[in-house]
Amino acid sequence: MMNYPNKKSTYNKKPIDYGNRGMTLEEDINISNRYYLENDIAIIYKKPTPIKVVNVEYNKRVNTKIKEAYYEIPSTTDYNGIYKGKYIDFDAKETKSKTSFSLNNIHKHQLEHLIRVKNHGGISFLIIRFSTINETYLLTTNDIEYFINNNDRKSIPIDYIRKYGYIINSNYYPRLEYIKIIDMIINEY
Amino acid sequence: MMNYPNKKSTYNKKPIDYGNRGMTLEEDINISNRYYLENDIAIIYKKPTPIKVVNVEYNKRVNTKIKEAYYEIPSTTDYNGIYKGKYIDFDAKETKSKTSFSLNNIHKHQLEHLIRVKNHGGISFLIIRFSTINETYLLTTNDIEYFINNNDRKSIPIDYIRKYGYIINSNYYPRLEYIKIIDMIINEY
Repeated sequence: MMNYPNKKSTYNKKPIDYGNRGMTLEEDINISNRYYLENDIAIIYKKPTPIKVVNVEYNKRVNTKIKEAYYEIPSTTDYNGIYKGKYIDFDAKETKSKTSFSLNNIHKHQLEHLIRVKNHGGISFLIIRFSTINETYLLTTNDIEYFINNNDRKSIPIDYIRKYGYIINSNYYPRLEYIKIIDMIINEY
Repeated sequence: MMNYPNKKSTYNKKPIDYGNRGMTLEEDINISNRYYLENDIAIIYKKPTPIKVVNVEYNKRVNTKIKEAYYEIPSTTDYNGIYKGKYIDFDAKETKSKTSFSLNNIHKHQLEHLIRVKNHGGISFLIIRFSTINETYLLTTNDIEYFINNNDRKSIPIDYIRKYGYIINSNYYPRLEYIKIIDMIINEY
């Protein structure tokens, strides 16, 4: 016998929460970037993960097989591209904390890279998701720098991020409308 | 007995040819990019090669070892970054031909990407090296598009590249002064 859905079971189902269907922040950003690309809005890609290849096996019949390799620490951020003629550069970070974002999540050279890009006229930032409470923010490099230069704390309290960051809404498509925030940032400058 | 250099042997040595010491175009560009970065001129990186990881071995004592992986075709170009606030995007291609650059060297999606970037206000181009005759050119996406739209040929003759492209000089440091060419392109727009 087939199980057809009936009104009762549908009624009892929780409404679909588009904001949190178990997708990682990275998946959400990749889906959004594909949307922006297909609609000719922005050209933003995730860089491949750097991998150090140690040993390969050549085989005429199939593709070269990598037999030994190791993940490397990226020297820059994960995402970059162009929007409205501007250079965009950012990284995405997820934390389970409900209260703060630990600066240990950013590599020193990643922060240096974000600051360098900002100084060269690019738009650089972090997208930070507090996954437990499902809140996602865009925090500009300026505001990260300001916090670091004026605090001894090794983590940014969520109140600071709520005050100075921009909340990013989760939609069905694009998943994370972070380009809208970039529009606001461009208009502020 | 040690062999000390003497005047005669030094005299007989060929002068150092900075333009061609067996380095690949990729090595030359990477060295130039490091120079531009260290001197705070431009922030341009080569993207990591995309690799599809199939099988890994976790080990608490050492780094995760990738046991099976394969090279993937990149969806964009190899290099991007920012210079004078502008988004820069390009690929580097070497050919042994002395007479032409085959368009088979560019993947269709790479060309589409270069055109898309140009249309969004970025500066996109190819760096093409004729390694046999050691001539390196910057050819803008505009000039590549123009050739493709007005020719049925599947390779761009070197005369076209000499006429419309910009020759890039090889120096000691930076190896390839392609940023100077970008300055010229910016001033032309």
